Formats: sequence, structure tokens, C-alpha cells
Amino acid sequence: MSATWGRKIKFTIFGESHGVAIGGVLEGIKPGTGIDFKKIDAGMKKRNHRAFYSTPRDEKDAYEILSGVKDGVTTGSPIGFVIRNEEQHSLDYVNLNETPRPGHADYPASVKYQGYNDYRGGGHFSGRITAPLTLAGSVARQVLEEQGVRIVSHIYSIGNVKSKSILDNPLNEQDIARLQTMEFPVLSEDAAKAMEEEIMKHKNNCDSVGGVVECAVYGINPGIGSPFFDSVESSISHMMFSIPAVKGIEFGRGFDIAAMSGFEANDSYRADNGRIVAESNNNGGILGGITNGMPIVFRVAVKPTPSIFKTQNTVNLTNLTNTEITLKGRHDVCIVPRAAAVVEAGTALCLLDLQESDQI
Amino acid sequence: MSATWGRKIKFTIFGESHGVAIGGVLEGIKPGTGIDFKKIDAGMKKRNHRAFYSTPRDEKDAYEILSGVKDGVTTGSPIGFVIRNEEQHSLDYVNLNETPRPGHADYPASVKYQGYNDYRGGGHFSGRITAPLTLAGSVARQVLEEQGVRIVSHIYSIGNVKSKSILDNPLNEQDIARLQTMEFPVLSEDAAKAMEEEIMKHKNNCDSVGGVVECAVYGINPGIGSPFFDSVESSISHMMFSIPAVKGIEFGRGFDIAAMSGFEANDSYRADNGRIVAESNNNGGILGGITNGMPIVFRVAVKPTPSIFKTQNTVNLTNLTNTEITLKGRHDVCIVPRAAAVVEAGTALCLLDLQESDQI
Amino acid sequence: MSATWGRKIKFTIFGESHGVAIGGVLEGIKPGTGIDFKKIDAGMKKRNHRAFYSTPRDEKDAYEILSGVKDGVTTGSPIGFVIRNEEQHSLDYVNLNETPRPGHADYPASVKYQGYNDYRGGGHFSGRITAPLTLAGSVARQVLEEQGVRIVSHIYSIGNVKSKSILDNPLNEQDIARLQTMEFPVLSEDAAKAMEEEIMKHKNNCDSVGGVVECAVYGINPGIGSPFFDSVESSISHMMFSIPAVKGIEFGRGFDIAAMSGFEANDSYRADNGRIVAESNNNGGILGGITNGMPIVFRVAVKPTPSIFKTQNTVNLTNLTNTEITLKGRHDVCIVPRAAAVVEAGTALCLLDLQESDQI
Amino acid sequence: MSATWGRKIKFTIFGESHGVAIGGVLEGIKPGTGIDFKKIDAGMKKRNHRAFYSTPRDEKDAYEILSGVKDGVTTGSPIGFVIRNEEQHSLDYVNLNETPRPGHADYPASVKYQGYNDYRGGGHFSGRITAPLTLAGSVARQVLEEQGVRIVSHIYSIGNVKSKSILDNPLNEQDIARLQTMEFPVLSEDAAKAMEEEIMKHKNNCDSVGGVVECAVYGINPGIGSPFFDSVESSISHMMFSIPAVKGIEFGRGFDIAAMSGFEANDSYRADNGRIVAESNNNGGILGGITNGMPIVFRVAVKPTPSIFKTQNTVNLTNLTNTEITLKGRHDVCIVPRAAAVVEAGTALCLLDLQESDQI
Repeated sequence: MSATWGRKIKFTIFGESHGVAIGGVLEGIKPGTGIDFKKIDAGMKKRNHRAFYSTPRDEKDAYEILSGVKDGVTTGSPIGFVIRNEEQHSLDYVNLNETPRPGHADYPASVKYQGYNDYRGGGHFSGRITAPLTLAGSVARQVLEEQGVRIVSHIYSIGNVKSKSILDNPLNEQDIARLQTMEFPVLSEDAAKAMEEEIMKHKNNCDSVGGVVECAVYGINPGIGSPFFDSVESSISHMMFSIPAVKGIEFGRGFDIAAMSGFEANDSYRADNGRIVAESNNNGGILGGITNGMPIVFRVAVKPTPSIFKTQNTVNLTNLTNTEITLKGRHDVCIVPRAAAVVEAGTALCLLDLQESDQI
Repeated sequence: MSATWGRKIKFTIFGESHGVAIGGVLEGIKPGTGIDFKKIDAGMKKRNHRAFYSTPRDEKDAYEILSGVKDGVTTGSPIGFVIRNEEQHSLDYVNLNETPRPGHADYPASVKYQGYNDYRGGGHFSGRITAPLTLAGSVARQVLEEQGVRIVSHIYSIGNVKSKSILDNPLNEQDIARLQTMEFPVLSEDAAKAMEEEIMKHKNNCDSVGGVVECAVYGINPGIGSPFFDSVESSISHMMFSIPAVKGIEFGRGFDIAAMSGFEANDSYRADNGRIVAESNNNGGILGGITNGMPIVFRVAVKPTPSIFKTQNTVNLTNLTNTEITLKGRHDVCIVPRAAAVVEAGTALCLLDLQESDQI
Repeated sequence: MSATWGRKIKFTIFGESHGVAIGGVLEGIKPGTGIDFKKIDAGMKKRNHRAFYSTPRDEKDAYEILSGVKDGVTTGSPIGFVIRNEEQHSLDYVNLNETPRPGHADYPASVKYQGYNDYRGGGHFSGRITAPLTLAGSVARQVLEEQGVRIVSHIYSIGNVKSKSILDNPLNEQDIARLQTMEFPVLSEDAAKAMEEEIMKHKNNCDSVGGVVECAVYGINPGIGSPFFDSVESSISHMMFSIPAVKGIEFGRGFDIAAMSGFEANDSYRADNGRIVAESNNNGGILGGITNGMPIVFRVAVKPTPSIFKTQNTVNLTNLTNTEITLKGRHDVCIVPRAAAVVEAGTALCLLDLQESDQI
Repeated sequence: MSATWGRKIKFTIFGESHGVAIGGVLEGIKPGTGIDFKKIDAGMKKRNHRAFYSTPRDEKDAYEILSGVKDGVTTGSPIGFVIRNEEQHSLDYVNLNETPRPGHADYPASVKYQGYNDYRGGGHFSGRITAPLTLAGSVARQVLEEQGVRIVSHIYSIGNVKSKSILDNPLNEQDIARLQTMEFPVLSEDAAKAMEEEIMKHKNNCDSVGGVVECAVYGINPGIGSPFFDSVESSISHMMFSIPAVKGIEFGRGFDIAAMSGFEANDSYRADNGRIVAESNNNGGILGGITNGMPIVFRVAVKPTPSIFKTQNTVNLTNLTNTEITLKGRHDVCIVPRAAAVVEAGTALCLLDLQESDQI
């Protein structure tokens, strides 16, 4: 039951890293919505861009829209699309159902799928499967942008190097626009430089490194979301933990708010030119599961990619004896910048669905 | 669409703090399941226990099972139940749709429900609505316990006082049993004492304080969960953010794992008497969205309850002018211990549903 | 997973005939909707009215709204309600899990629930459980009526006595209003009289008799519904077959359309004062799963209630030997008039949900 | 929300008749399930076979499995597949959003999709979109067959020519096997001949003709299904009305049971060699929404295809004036035999989902 998401905006994903193709089906986009393919391309490229910290693999993400769009405009029917898997070096991979990689899904997947899963390249667990999610999110994002909603993310930390939070450094329109075009978006130039060094350090060490992505949503109306099971936090976190490697999420001050007093944490209100605004945004734009009109702000913890070149201890599942595994092939040192593109896409899908499905 | 949760185990919640009654409907519990009402009582009491840090309000949580249970055994039909609202001091409350409390849902709720919501006592947003969730979770937990699954939580931090993590202090059976019976469960006695002082400090200051709950699940089989949209993390986080005041969640090392290298973060495997075990649990028992047989460990950030006795700035929504609000009545200083009971209940519902619905 | 229905308008049902109470939870009704309790009462009374053909049992359907309505107006939160079971003559009933009644759910239920189901009075399968559905449907219907949508039904046939179809006898506003207030609504007075005789015949014979209800919906906009899995026919039929004793449904000419030629069956269009209308309504107001603006017309086959006083052959499930069963107690001779009330209620829930959830 | 179906076995459909491709995503098939592509081919061919009553169009249904199957065995991940649209004679079609065909979805679709739908060839409403459903159903059917469940259908009537019902002519294993291989499966040879004449008569008349398909499921266990919203009848009817042109469904004696007395209609039980059997099957294998172990039997009314060569009255939607439409191109005279293949496929999906998702 894992491959379909959503209430009114629905998204179904399929594919395995070394199968014929990956793809998805996006439902619920209003008929007559113009699709800007350049924006889709930009989102796909951000997820798959080349840099010193990413794999030199030439993974083409050429997508083909099969239905639901005619002459660049949505018809209202489901938008089906595929991305062919072109390059398949299956020989790079050992039998991961027999010798699972630490930190990867290999072992639990071999249990769940009783050894029938296509483990090559991680199969259905591959980060590559986030490409369809990115495409669908790009479509949702275009609808939101038409309504004045802007989604932006930046790299809050890499390893031990921290940048700063939007909560303390509110963005203006120029900041948002600038961050949206950066391949390695960081609020502080100094931090960006230190982060690159942190990545190089781990690369030279045949290791990998994680980080934290901060995402913000500007222009969302108050009153979106619900108490209990369809809270904005529930919806966004559900989606974020669908992204491989995500291990934590916090809204507003998040874990830090637990150390604050109520008086400090409460975002008091102020009248501002006939509008109500909050004087701080410790709750990240959400109260009682519902948007309050302040920017939605959350941070997502991305673990270091488990694909490293160091030899690691593992177990041969066939005879349950200790053994070692040393990965070959090409692997990203740091997936955080690419994860940011997926975080944005998933956020777009969530918010559009919340807006469309939840209009009580 | 917010009041029903689940796939095979379904739970529907209803009620408002000062309405006639709150309650719920629990579906999917196998027929012939014996219900231990003492265990339900214990869970309800844990959520509603009296202490220096909680409200002196005599909130009775007497529940009545209306259907689905006959002679103490489930019939297989939906379990409907109600908890009557007995004590209603509506006069304690100002019109919260006009003068919203900072940090509460009042303002976004007044937008979403166009002023028609029953704001008295927080209405449908009241923490009181977690009582039905606790009851349903207690039933789910009993089913899991029969299968050898144990859910335990403790207070990881209150304000700035931190205890320690289960990740660094593995629990044995005695530890689990002891924590399960404590009203203020903390791994370290020293920390417990300091936490109580932290709470008293905020109480004396007419303020409130938050904290972090750590929850662990022992005895869960590997292979539960799914990649993408039904990952164990997606399911648990969705539920946790349905609990009022929760602002963050992290699995395993969570945000700390983002600062680790891949080699440090990866939980390498070892053969142990014909079983496969991980030498660490940095991933909190979940890889690729699927359980790996290690304990599931996660932490939940609970914000300080926004109900404080200090005067706060707010806005009169009718004429959009600045004003102040000073709350009266009775309010908890710290809801963290009570939240732990709800965290455990929600976790039980999640895991039972994942087990029952997701058997590919 | 059987007790919750709907997408945006959601309804959860619970209860067993001889348990403490039956009830439901209705979600998705817009805040600020005024509830006319007299209309609810009328719908409940229609489902439970007294006549020569119905049971003399004094089954009180006194409902209590527990949440979601304040001062007669919806708050936007889930509407929980209960109907207490007052009169319980459990002694009337033999162990139906041991000696199942022919035509009833007893045998398959005993298999599905492994004998743990509360068989008294039919338990969760009792026609009594349609009372919560009727209540919820009455609320939905009020919302639709505000929008100009009117739902009306009549008895198309009882046993071998047929009345006539709305398809051949279009109703005007007066007809609709008159039918809505009749306890035994039939289009033809002669047929009504013959139907009463047909019922008396079966009553005198210690037997029961079925019939067909025809339901029509006037004032629905064109463009509601979807191709494939959310077609209007799919939604309505799904709901209708949730009503105990329903064994068939047909839209427009239904089974008769299968004997027509395409030229006869196609409803050709005509311009009528700046509107498009169809010259016939053989498709019952639905094309491609979507409303076309003509009245929705469908017929539902209601089987004779299986509760009869004749001795019938059955099997003792404990020792698998042949035996007989002779029912005592009080049973309707003909449930068709009461079923009509439930058909209308279910139709209201369906159409409101289709309208609210399906706005592409 | 219309394109995804199911609870545990989920199916998502996409595509438009004259778009790039049609296809689907099938989830929930257990890993390790061997796929017999010859059986898929047979199901596809049955839906698309050539005969005097079907279109001479050379519509190729060459499918490509993109994921979820490796070396002929399911991996447990979603099975994505596409069927390319090869032959596109868009010029055959007028602007159906301007001049809607009577009996087709054109007019309500133009309202719902505000004119943005791809009307060419019926677009997403085309009968061609049942090809993915047939493929998915074929996979589900193979799983059921492994469990001893057999699905069979035959043509019960064409126009005014009726054959006989399985209810009166129980099938043995040889009958089932024989019907499953027939392209024009009819229980009576005489009726088959008369049906062909009936079809020819309408063909010569530039018209079309409908009919009724009867479907039976043998070998299903008792206890499958649920009361109320997940009744077997609800599930099957929901699916059947997703098939274009279906206007009615009845289970067991269906509409005829409404004319029977309770004593006649009730299927009395008898012990038979340590098993319980019913002496008749008037309820079509389902009581209280749950299978009783007798064959599931239902009939589906298929309207005459609205595509005919006679000139028909319609309206120009742009200026709302009366006009005429005369279709060109190639159209089936009778889609009933092809519909039978889709009915079987949909039934397979329904029953597998009911079995897998509903195990209380």
C-alpha cells in the first residue's frame, strides 16, 4: 500500500533503479493548468546536478509525459509519465539480499520481500526513485506559485558546519529568488565555504557526510490544515519521511522549543495595517495543525548516505556468518543539496493537497 | 477529513472540550481479543494523573464502551465509546475567536471554521481530545503485547535539563517494566530531580515548560513497513504530529546523525547465535522505512503548553486592534509526562496498523 | 475496514442491535450549517414508522448529538452521535452462531468473526444499524436542499405488483413534495392499494415480501462525478449495497437498456431556452460516470426480509447435522417502505461527498 | 480522485485514447508471484478480439511491464506498465466538446473539465482505457487461481435474445474451462446463434445493441467481505460501474428476488458430508455483504454502445443551437463480448483485494 499518496492531489510512484523505467501518476491537477516544462527541467536538474560531491554517473532523467497534458495544458485526467533507466551497470553490485550493506534498506527489504526484491542499485529503495516525486512536485509547485505561494530551501548544516536559520534571518523576495536558483544554497557565504571543505574532508576519507535542509513556504493562507490526523505537520512529515535518508523533522524552533518557556515560545500577536501578524515564528507558521499565515518553516535531518568506500562489517544472510563488504562504483559523498530539491517537491505536493482537499 | 486515521486498524475521533461528550470508534481489532480494562484504566490514568505540575482540575475520564465488546471480548465490529464531559466552567473563558491566545490554535481555527468552532476550552483542539486516542491505543497495545511487543517511554528532557537516551543506555526487561509503571519516568534519578526543580521554577514564574519524550518499541519483527509513503517513520510521525504541542520528531540519532559520517552512522551487522543484529542503533530500528529488528527509538519534542498566567499581547480580531490577554482557570505547568502516555498510545495504533495492513 | 465511508464527507458507523448503543461520526459538514432537527426527526420516523406491514416493536430511535453542533449550528468538527438501545429481548433469540437463519448473515458472520460476533438481533448486521446512516444522511440532505437539490423516492414494486417509473412519469415540484411526505409513497393509487394487498397476503401466510424502490435526484448540476473508480454509479451503488437486503441496482433504463438499440438508448440533445437538455433520460442522468444535468434516476431491488415465521431447514454448525429453525418475536412483513428512507439518506451522503470532494 | 482504486491491492489507471500511451500501476501483489504472460495475453486478446461485431480497427494492445516484475516473478514493488497508442486517426473526430455525441460522456465531460479534456476518441473515457484494467485483473486472477478460485462469465443476453442463468444451470469444472476459452461464450448454442443474428440485424441497421453479462466466481471461501461499506456487493458493484457502458448490476436473483417471498428467497441450509451448503443460491453467494461459500453470481447490464452511424440530434455547445451529428470511423456493433473480459478482470481485482485487505 506504499506507493500511492494523497487525498485530492494523488500521486502514485513506481520503478526500480535497474528496471526498465521509473515513473508516476499524478491526479487531481485542475484541467486547463499550463505546464511550464522549463520549470520541471529546473527541478529535475537541481535533484540531479553535477558537482564535486555528487556521483559522476551520467544518470539521465529524461522524462516522457504519457497522458493528462495536451498542448502544454492539463486535461484534468491523470498525468502518467515515465523516466527510462538507461545506464545499468548491474555488475557493480554484489547480491545485496545475501550480503546487506550497513545503513541501507537491503536487510529489512530482503525480509519483507522474502528475497524477491530487485536489489540491484537499491531497487525500489534507490534515491533515483525520488525523480518522479520531483517531477510531480514541480507540477504542484507551479499551481501554488500561480497563487502566490513560494517554496524555498537552503542547506542549514553539513556535518558539523552550521549556517543560520530563516527564523532568525527572514528572507525578502530577492533572497527567495536568489536561493531558488542556487545549486548549493546557503544563507551564509562563509558557512557555504566551510561546508564544501567539510564535504571534501569526507570525500578524501572515502566516507560520506549528512546535513540538515531548512525549507520555508511563503504566501500560504491562514486556515489550511486540520487538527489531529490531517495536521499540516502530519502531512508534511509523512511526506518528508518518505524521502530516503531523512531521519528527523522539526517545525519552527522544533527541538529547541522544548527548552523554552511558554512565554518565550508563544508567538504573540500584533495588529499590522489591518492584518494580524505574529511577532515571532517559533511555531513555524502552524498552530493546532493549521497554518496561521506566517511562513511555514521546518528543518529536515538527512543522514550521511550509507554508500561509502570503507570496508564495513556485515553478515552473510545465507549462512549467517560474519563477513565484510566493500562497495565499488560511484556514489555521492553528500546527498544534502540534491535532497533539498526533493524536499521542496514533496512540500509542494503536500500543500497543494492540503489546500485542495481540506476546505471545510 | 481530519478525524479518521488508519488503513486496516482505523480510528475515528470526535468531541469538543465543553460539548456533551468526546469519544471514538476503533475498527479492525480481531474478533475474540480479550480486553483488559485495568490496562485501559492504567493508560487513561497515566494521561490524566495528578501531580504538582498538572492542573488540579478533576477531569474525569470515565469511558463507556458502546459496541464491539461483549463479555470483555471483542466481537469484530467497530468499538464505539464515549467519555462524557462533566465539568464545564465555560465562564472561565473569554471569546477566543475574538481574542486569540498566543501559541494556541484559536486564531487559525477561527479562520478555518469562520468563527463557528466551539472555542470553549479549546474545543476540538483541546488536549482533552487525546483521551479517546489513549483509550484506542491501549486496546492496540494489548494486542501487540500478546505478540511480545513492548512500548516504553521516558522523559528525555524538561526545559534545559536533559536525561540520557535509550540509544546509549539499552534497557533490559526489568528497566522496561519499571519505566512502564512510573508516573514521572526518567532514566536518571538525578535528572528526574533536576527536572522537577525546572518545572517548579516555571510554575513559580506563572509560566510553563516543555520537554522531549523518548519512546522505544521492543520486540517488533524485521520487515514491517514500506518504502516511500508508508514508511514506519512516515506513519509514526504522522500520528505524533496529530498530538497537540508536538513540534519535532527524530528517529535513532535523528538530527545528530546529520553531523556524523557515513561510517559512523551506518549500523554494521554481526551474526549473533544464528541471528543478525546491528552493532549500534543509530537508525532507530528503521532502514528504508522498514523495521530491521532493532528497537524502534524516536524522540518527540513537546512545546511548553501555551496556557500561561502571564499577560500576553494579542489582537482583537473584530476590530484588529492590539490588546492583551490574561488567562485564568487551571492549567498544567508541564504536559510532558502526560504527553508520554499519548505518545505510547499513538505508537501502539501505528504499529498495529502497520503490522496488520502491510503484509506484502 | 468496513465501518468508515467517504472521501471528504466521511461517515463512520458503529453498534450492535442488542449492545449498549449504536451511533456514528459524520465529518466534513461545513461550519456554520444550520441543522433542522425536525427534518432529522422526519427522516428517522420514515425509517421507523409504524404500519400493518412493520413490526409492532417499540424501537425508539432517540438520538443524542455529542459533538460538532452548537446552538443548532455545525462547528466544523466531527459530529458524533449515539442512539441508545433500550429494549433488549435477547431471550427471543436462539444461538444464531450455532443455528444460522437462512437468508440472514448468521452463517457467513460466524465464519468471518469466528463465532465472536454478537449475534443477538443480528448484531452489527441488524437493519437497526441503518438508523445512524439515516441520521447522517438527513444532515447531508439538508445541505443539498439548500443548494436546490431534492431527493425523492417511491415504491416501484412490491412482490409482483408494479407501479410505474419516474422515467415515464416525470415529477413536478408538487409531486416531489407530496411523495416526500407520504409514508407509503407510490406513483399510482391503484398500485398502492394492490401493493397493500400483496403485503397482507404474505403476512397472512407467515411469510415476507420484497420490492423495488425508485429514487430520483432533481437539481443536481452537470459535471459531478468522474470516469472510472469514482463514477456516480460506482459511488451510489457502493452505498446502496451497504444497505442490508439490497440485491440489485440499475440506473436509468438499467437492465432494459441492454435490450434497446443504441439509437433508442441514446438520449439526444436539444437546445431549450439557452440550456442543453436531453430528450429522454434512459441513462438516468449519468454519462461516463458524470452527471449530465438530467435527474439521476435509479432503482434498488430489496429482497424480502429473511425473517419469516415459517419453519425452515438449516444446519447445526456445531455438529453439522440437519435441523430446523422457527423464528419467534416480531418481524416486519415488508421492509421496502422503510428501506426507501435509508436509500434517500445514503443517496444524500453520496451526492454531497461527490460534490464536495470532486471538484476538478 | 478517480484514477486509483483499492485498499491493499491498489490499482491506478491513466491514459487517453489518442494520447501517447495508456497504462497503470498495480500494487500489493505478493513478492515471488510468478506471472504467466500467456494468461495476460489471453485476457488482453479476449478484450480485443476480432469478430464481425467488433471494429476492424487494428488496435494493438502491446504492453510493456516497466517495474515490479523480474525474470517473470513479482518483486513486491509496484508493477508499472504502459500500452502505447499507435494508431491515431484524430481527423475522424469532430470537436466533441463543441458537438457532443448523444449517449457518450462528451457533454458532462466538457462541463467537468471545462473544455480542456482530450476528447479525441473519447479521451480518458474511451473503452480503450479498460485495457490496463484487463491487464491488472489478469495478474490478480492468476493469484486467485493458485488458490483455487475460478472466475467465469458468459453472455446472458444480447438485445432481446436471452440465454439462461448459471443459477438454474450449475456449471461443472468442464463447463467452466470450456466457457473460459470461448470468444463468444453462451450457455446455450441456440441462444448463441440467435444472438449473432440479433447483432447482425443491428449492424445492418447502422445501429448497435447491448446485452447482459453473467459472471460467476467458484471456489471462494466463506467469510470474505464485510457488513456495510465494504460488502462484497459494494466492492464488486463499485468496480463494475467503473466500466464504461455498465448501467445495472444484480446479485443472485437480483431484481427477481424482489418479487419472491421470503420463504422462496431464503437459501435454506443442508449438511453435506461434513460441510454446510445452501440448497439454492438466490442470494448469489453473499449474505450480509459476506461470502457464504456458494458461487458468487451476478449479472451486469451493458448498454448498446452509443457510437452508431445513424444521424442523431445534438446541440452546438458554443452557441446552444440545435444541430445533428453523424459519426464516421469504425465502431463496434456490440461490445458485450469484449465487456465480459473486463468484467472478469475487475472481479478478480475486487476479490483479491477483499481477500487480502479484509481478514478480520
